[in-house]
Amino acid sequence: MVNAGHAEHQHSDRYVVGVDFGTLSGRAVVVRVGDGAEVAAAEYAYPHAVLDRELPDGTPLPADWALQVPADYIGVLRHAVPEALSRSGVRSEQVIGIGTDFTACTVLPVLADSTPMCELPGLESRPHAYVKLWRHHAAQGQADRINALAAERKEPWLELYGGKISSEWEFAKALQVLEEDPEIYHRTERWVEAADWIVWRLCGTYVRNACTAGYKGQYQNGAYPAPDYLAALNPGFAGFVSEKLDQPIGRLGDLAGRLTAEAAAWTGLPEGIAVCVGNVDAHVTAPAAAAVEPGRMVAIMGTSTCHVMSSGRRASVPGMCGVVDGGILPGLWGYEAGQSGVGDIFAWFLRTGFPAEYAERAKLLGQIPHEYLTTLAARQKVGEHGLIALDWHSGNRSVLVDHDLSGVVVGLTLSTRPEDVYRALLEATAFGTRTIIEAFETSGVPVEELIIAGGLTKNALLMQIYADVTRRPLSVVDSTQGPALGAAMHAAVAAGAYADIRAAAQAMGKVRKAVHLPDSERAEAYDRLYAEYRLLHDYFGRGANEVMHRLRRLRAEASA
Amino acid sequence: MVNAGHAEHQHSDRYVVGVDFGTLSGRAVVVRVGDGAEVAAAEYAYPHAVLDRELPDGTPLPADWALQVPADYIGVLRHAVPEALSRSGVRSEQVIGIGTDFTACTVLPVLADSTPMCELPGLESRPHAYVKLWRHHAAQGQADRINALAAERKEPWLELYGGKISSEWEFAKALQVLEEDPEIYHRTERWVEAADWIVWRLCGTYVRNACTAGYKGQYQNGAYPAPDYLAALNPGFAGFVSEKLDQPIGRLGDLAGRLTAEAAAWTGLPEGIAVCVGNVDAHVTAPAAAAVEPGRMVAIMGTSTCHVMSSGRRASVPGMCGVVDGGILPGLWGYEAGQSGVGDIFAWFLRTGFPAEYAERAKLLGQIPHEYLTTLAARQKVGEHGLIALDWHSGNRSVLVDHDLSGVVVGLTLSTRPEDVYRALLEATAFGTRTIIEAFETSGVPVEELIIAGGLTKNALLMQIYADVTRRPLSVVDSTQGPALGAAMHAAVAAGAYADIRAAAQAMGKVRKAVHLPDSERAEAYDRLYAEYRLLHDYFGRGANEVMHRLRRLRAEASA
Repeated sequence: MVNAGHAEHQHSDRYVVGVDFGTLSGRAVVVRVGDGAEVAAAEYAYPHAVLDRELPDGTPLPADWALQVPADYIGVLRHAVPEALSRSGVRSEQVIGIGTDFTACTVLPVLADSTPMCELPGLESRPHAYVKLWRHHAAQGQADRINALAAERKEPWLELYGGKISSEWEFAKALQVLEEDPEIYHRTERWVEAADWIVWRLCGTYVRNACTAGYKGQYQNGAYPAPDYLAALNPGFAGFVSEKLDQPIGRLGDLAGRLTAEAAAWTGLPEGIAVCVGNVDAHVTAPAAAAVEPGRMVAIMGTSTCHVMSSGRRASVPGMCGVVDGGILPGLWGYEAGQSGVGDIFAWFLRTGFPAEYAERAKLLGQIPHEYLTTLAARQKVGEHGLIALDWHSGNRSVLVDHDLSGVVVGLTLSTRPEDVYRALLEATAFGTRTIIEAFETSGVPVEELIIAGGLTKNALLMQIYADVTRRPLSVVDSTQGPALGAAMHAAVAAGAYADIRAAAQAMGKVRKAVHLPDSERAEAYDRLYAEYRLLHDYFGRGANEVMHRLRRLRAEASA
Repeated sequence: MVNAGHAEHQHSDRYVVGVDFGTLSGRAVVVRVGDGAEVAAAEYAYPHAVLDRELPDGTPLPADWALQVPADYIGVLRHAVPEALSRSGVRSEQVIGIGTDFTACTVLPVLADSTPMCELPGLESRPHAYVKLWRHHAAQGQADRINALAAERKEPWLELYGGKISSEWEFAKALQVLEEDPEIYHRTERWVEAADWIVWRLCGTYVRNACTAGYKGQYQNGAYPAPDYLAALNPGFAGFVSEKLDQPIGRLGDLAGRLTAEAAAWTGLPEGIAVCVGNVDAHVTAPAAAAVEPGRMVAIMGTSTCHVMSSGRRASVPGMCGVVDGGILPGLWGYEAGQSGVGDIFAWFLRTGFPAEYAERAKLLGQIPHEYLTTLAARQKVGEHGLIALDWHSGNRSVLVDHDLSGVVVGLTLSTRPEDVYRALLEATAFGTRTIIEAFETSGVPVEELIIAGGLTKNALLMQIYADVTRRPLSVVDSTQGPALGAAMHAAVAAGAYADIRAAAQAMGKVRKAVHLPDSERAEAYDRLYAEYRLLHDYFGRGANEVMHRLRRLRAEASA
């Protein structure tokens, strides 16, 4: 464990609070400034969770919608923070700052005083007045037009986003509001990331964080997409940036403001302590893993995987979700890439491909299905199952940037067993990560270290497969609350306890180095399987056979 | 139901017995000569079933072996025939003939008096002394050499077998005996198909049937593979044809001889009645379905599918298992094609892809898994599942003739359900049949009618899919004992009750015409899916991407 303790003496009685706002709940962690020790944590589940069928008043929602209620986020401040503090035994006055991270792009329409539109009288039944969660996918039509027009006009920002922006991001979601509920759009005074709105509520100041501005708002070289481009999308959209989006940018780790009396009352923290600029869950995990040097790639592996890495070079790497100045660490170019489905694919397989007979045997052994299949799969030699899979059940984020792709299994025989397909799926996601790493390296952005964070670090077989497939030793974040720890570290910087996030990461970051080592014999066998993966990857993913798009079209027609 | 009754009066008190020798049991049926009515049936399970792990005395068998015990076949004559007769209420003297059909190529080494080698004292522990069942696959090495040498020497018979003969057939299996147990080989006086051996035991005369001689023994234009070719395979094999194989050929439906006193005692039938020349289960089903005109294709659908059809033209149709003069009906060219896995693939999916939750719901509804999945799959529109599959889990017999191919599923998403994959597999086998039909037609051998027989006719969804995919009305054999009925019809011909099998089929054959009709809207949607199938079929099956062969090699290396 790398955890230099030189600052320990100085900070041994001071603490920071990190709050990680996830999809279904928020988690608060009390962290010691000196060494990053996570003293206590507490979680608060959002009472409204995700609104994807109806609003709280019963108003039905169409398919692909995903909304949230902003008051639920305040609930995290009011319940999880004081509970964590109480469990920690730390006295309130020992806390010098609070930092947050959020899902993104999760975005809401508010008035100039930060009041969410959905809290205005008479707007409770208007879906567009609510928070649009990152996985709200109903703005695909708008995103398609945004991309087509940008490609046609050769907008300079497009190549920094892999040639396509997502329907999940700020512009597509805002354009959907304009086109579907113009009244809400016109009454909206600020279109704000939830990451920044929560900071605004903590300190009373709206500072837009550099990370989401760049990754979700196409803010590049000090500018957003130009008014004439926006007007060409929709004449009513021309003023979107100047009227509703633009705001001073805060660097990650900067002080956004001081905790207000109101927020002090919610949290039980001292009024006036440092409140850090907002941040994003994946990106904040990099310093938590002490990954503050260029070329340290952190893969946050859960239902999906997000790869974040900083570099001194700005390069055009195929299939990036974005390259943003200071997007992860001030002073470096931040790269984000991703795999849309990872743990989600394994969970899907367990739901659909785990037979009753297996369920009984697992039960007898006292194992959960994941465990049981993993045990069986772990006994196999590389290639023994005779399968190769493509991990595109949820589309391909990087490097193909195509969410209409789908999953494939090749090599099935009458003796293929569930553990065989399961292992092939684990391997396919590892091949996906290797494809991303190779895209970086062949674009002149070297990957020096691969660090894994997130829930899937618990699966030792999966970790070993990643080490063997990438031929790299894997480092692992040594925290079960990586994002909240990262948020707390940024708070320590904002509070002035460290000069910058690099210093904070050196003292507080937690990573176990080279936990999983590649085996050269297995790696050689995987090289052969990876060659097959790439062949199928390019065949199905790069236009040689557009069968996946045609199948999706046929499916849509049949379901219509 | 087409069942012309013009001969009824003449034959109303006369009967024939058909005996169908399957893989695990034999079934005897008593059939009325006049109209083909199946009066009674009885089954006898082989006591030794399939020897695939050890001989009866415990001698272990290697992988891929599959043997049988010839005495078990006699057991069918001794038990099933008298039981069927007794159940029928028919008096023994009303029976005028007996006919048989057998699995093929199922073959055994015997002395010149028909005694099986495994019954000779001292040979009980010698695996090569036993019957080699059709699915004995341990002679693949011999088959590979047979094919390579025949291709090299451009042997004229090779193209009539799709360019490859199978390890299941007579020459490969005999060569294996020579090379692995020369003593057994040298003491063997006849290498005889079980189809002919059982007739030999019934009437005392060894007549080789035209069907297996052609399909399993490469007998073409009155000749077998030549001695110099055999000598080049193995010098000791040069005399195989003249010394052990060659025998007068009997046409299907011909009289082989008269029931011996011994066989009359076994069966309870009158000594001296007609015994018909041997035949094969799939081929004998064609006249049972009244398919005696050129261009009537009968698909016998069970664990695998066998397609048999006669034609006046001899053409080179890609991927045939064989084209044989009089191989199904005297006077016509008999074509045989097949799909190695059909019901086997569905059964595999139910074993591996039917989750516990589904098992519970099926149980509550009182449905077996096949029924439950079929009900769910039947609710879908064509293309709604978004999938396309290749049905090669057990390799591809026709038209690619490559048993090292394997199954594929394309289009998987996180919302793909078991019933989706199940339906895609049903459809894939229908696309496989359409591929075979198109191979016939583009080779100038028209397919006038598609008639389905076998256990899978019970699945109405599957039948409807076949009708829609092939755009043809499906006729269905109207007998649950199609092969035994066909064997009985041949017996009626051998006994002189009908001039030939065509006349017998007109009177006794049973087919329901156009039971399943294609729907043009579904057929159009299937045309689009079939285009995708063919694209993937050719990509994976014709050398563009040899991934399946490489995966198999990697699997073999990993398992070694």
